[in-house]
Amino acid sequence: MRTVMSDRALNRLRRLARKVLECLEDGKPLRIPKRTTSNIEYDPDSGIYKVGDAKLERRPDTLKGSKKLAQMMCVAAFAKELVERNRSATLREIYYTSEGWDVSFKDQRESDAIIEDLEAATGLKREEFGIWPEEDGAAVYGDLLVREDGVEIHAERAGISGYNIPPNVDAVEFLDCGAERVIAVETMGMYRRLVQERAHEKLDALIIGLKGQAARATRRLIKRLNEELDLPVYVFTDGDPYGWHIYMVIKSGSAKAAHLNEELACPDAVFLGVTATDIVEYDLPTEPLKEADLKRIDELLKDPRYDDPFWRRELHKLKKIGRKAEQQAFAKYSLDYVVEEYLPRKLEELE
Amino acid sequence: MRTVMSDRALNRLRRLARKVLECLEDGKPLRIPKRTTSNIEYDPDSGIYKVGDAKLERRPDTLKGSKKLAQMMCVAAFAKELVERNRSATLREIYYTSEGWDVSFKDQRESDAIIEDLEAATGLKREEFGIWPEEDGAAVYGDLLVREDGVEIHAERAGISGYNIPPNVDAVEFLDCGAERVIAVETMGMYRRLVQERAHEKLDALIIGLKGQAARATRRLIKRLNEELDLPVYVFTDGDPYGWHIYMVIKSGSAKAAHLNEELACPDAVFLGVTATDIVEYDLPTEPLKEADLKRIDELLKDPRYDDPFWRRELHKLKKIGRKAEQQAFAKYSLDYVVEEYLPRKLEELE
Repeated sequence: MRTVMSDRALNRLRRLARKVLECLEDGKPLRIPKRTTSNIEYDPDSGIYKVGDAKLERRPDTLKGSKKLAQMMCVAAFAKELVERNRSATLREIYYTSEGWDVSFKDQRESDAIIEDLEAATGLKREEFGIWPEEDGAAVYGDLLVREDGVEIHAERAGISGYNIPPNVDAVEFLDCGAERVIAVETMGMYRRLVQERAHEKLDALIIGLKGQAARATRRLIKRLNEELDLPVYVFTDGDPYGWHIYMVIKSGSAKAAHLNEELACPDAVFLGVTATDIVEYDLPTEPLKEADLKRIDELLKDPRYDDPFWRRELHKLKKIGRKAEQQAFAKYSLDYVVEEYLPRKLEELE
Repeated sequence: MRTVMSDRALNRLRRLARKVLECLEDGKPLRIPKRTTSNIEYDPDSGIYKVGDAKLERRPDTLKGSKKLAQMMCVAAFAKELVERNRSATLREIYYTSEGWDVSFKDQRESDAIIEDLEAATGLKREEFGIWPEEDGAAVYGDLLVREDGVEIHAERAGISGYNIPPNVDAVEFLDCGAERVIAVETMGMYRRLVQERAHEKLDALIIGLKGQAARATRRLIKRLNEELDLPVYVFTDGDPYGWHIYMVIKSGSAKAAHLNEELACPDAVFLGVTATDIVEYDLPTEPLKEADLKRIDELLKDPRYDDPFWRRELHKLKKIGRKAEQQAFAKYSLDYVVEEYLPRKLEELE
């Protein structure tokens, strides 16, 4: 089954192979975007964390460089086979598969790094080459009809756990959507709560359960829902620096996948709560901030992504009250309070 | 919506309430099965880890006893409301909800323990009271048609990630099943591999992804498939003591949920591999055993559940070769090797 997407992946692989061949013939290095922290910058215009202009060189005339080039070409050949056969393999499987290759990897860290090289060199996500992570994605619930591998799935009729977001989310077609917004929530506990209280109907929303820090597939789905279906995106997390950073990564991307942030980050995403102000105003049950929380707050205060009046106020306020709260803390009032009171009020404020 | 199940739950709660009332009137203690390790025994006849005859006492005439009784009655009242309203709440939500009650809990550990008391006192699983864990269950793929909350779901038509096992798995009705066996696998990586290689068709199997140590809902589903649909169950794990113990918990239950093992354990479950013998015969890529692995092997050698010739041989052999292998290590030969060669050969040996 050939698709536009797989043709693109094959073309990029062929182009890379030609470039490597030229390098070998001319004894010149292959230059690929550098992915170290020093070359990652926050771009305030797009609101995305991006890879800068620095390049790293793989020299075919050195032992180290030629080995890395050979490793990358083995991975590229394997990726080509995956795309042609319309199959996928996990990062771990590729590491094991490499046992049968002429070049070897010391450990999976090394093969993962070469796969990131391949992404940076081709400008495509590894998912487009059929290379998937081990981890499951998260889930969506609400009025969304998709087609996946020829099968139509409605995200309200896939069981109470919702529609599982697959790793190759670019292959999912959106057929129909009756929702007016996306509400992404940090914990699966809150996801189940919103589904059970029928927040998808009451708030006309697709509910997405993130399972903590959002996986790449989840972030990609959120971005696609925002761009292709023009849905506003709200993120609802715990009231602590880790929860806030879950939102920030959805909005502006992560350092680790900076070379892909333009595909993954959703600069339109709006933070819904829990804010430090909410903790005080709703008198939520809290726990004291730990050493690590305080350290994290100080780090975020130095992070350019948090350099605006809202975040500076909230970070300082959290530090001042010295306490944090989970999103499930609204259960103090009643299980449905979050859907009947908190979320409608917040959405009204923000829309 | 009243069901046989919810009637049973309400009856047990009423019976418990009457018993507690009698205790209060007579000043006598409430006796509930003790769940400490000293009172958990392996029952070789049923092959299940069970709670023994020892009881713990909650005395209404002591400060500590009366507090614990009051806490349990608050949880019981909340559970009654959940059952009557056909709702559910997570362990964490109940902890937060208790902020509004007359008795309090120091932390969630304390409320979780009282919920286990309620299970032990009523002999029902907390899921039957609508009390769910935070964590998602795992997934099933294959020819299985179920009904969940009025919606029919086919486990081959719920997306490539399969049908998400819900926490309240007792409420799932089995409508139709064309598979002849269950193959439960430790990692989601292997689960995806089997689905992709169409192991469900080639091996006439329902494929279950366990996500490591199996959640209670997953174990309950496996047991129900085994007992109600008469399907043999095979468990495929990594070749190390932790993987083997994942199998053993499915087969004979865990110490932690010993009071429920008769509902959860599946004594018919058969271990499929990876054995120490497989590691040698298939010349699998391995890693050296760590200190913790060796310690775990010694613990298992003392565990009555492993007291048979097969397990003694395998544990000693693993120790002797000093290495362990993951189930994904078969990718060394090719991605489909596990479905085309390894699993058919093992099933033939065992059936």
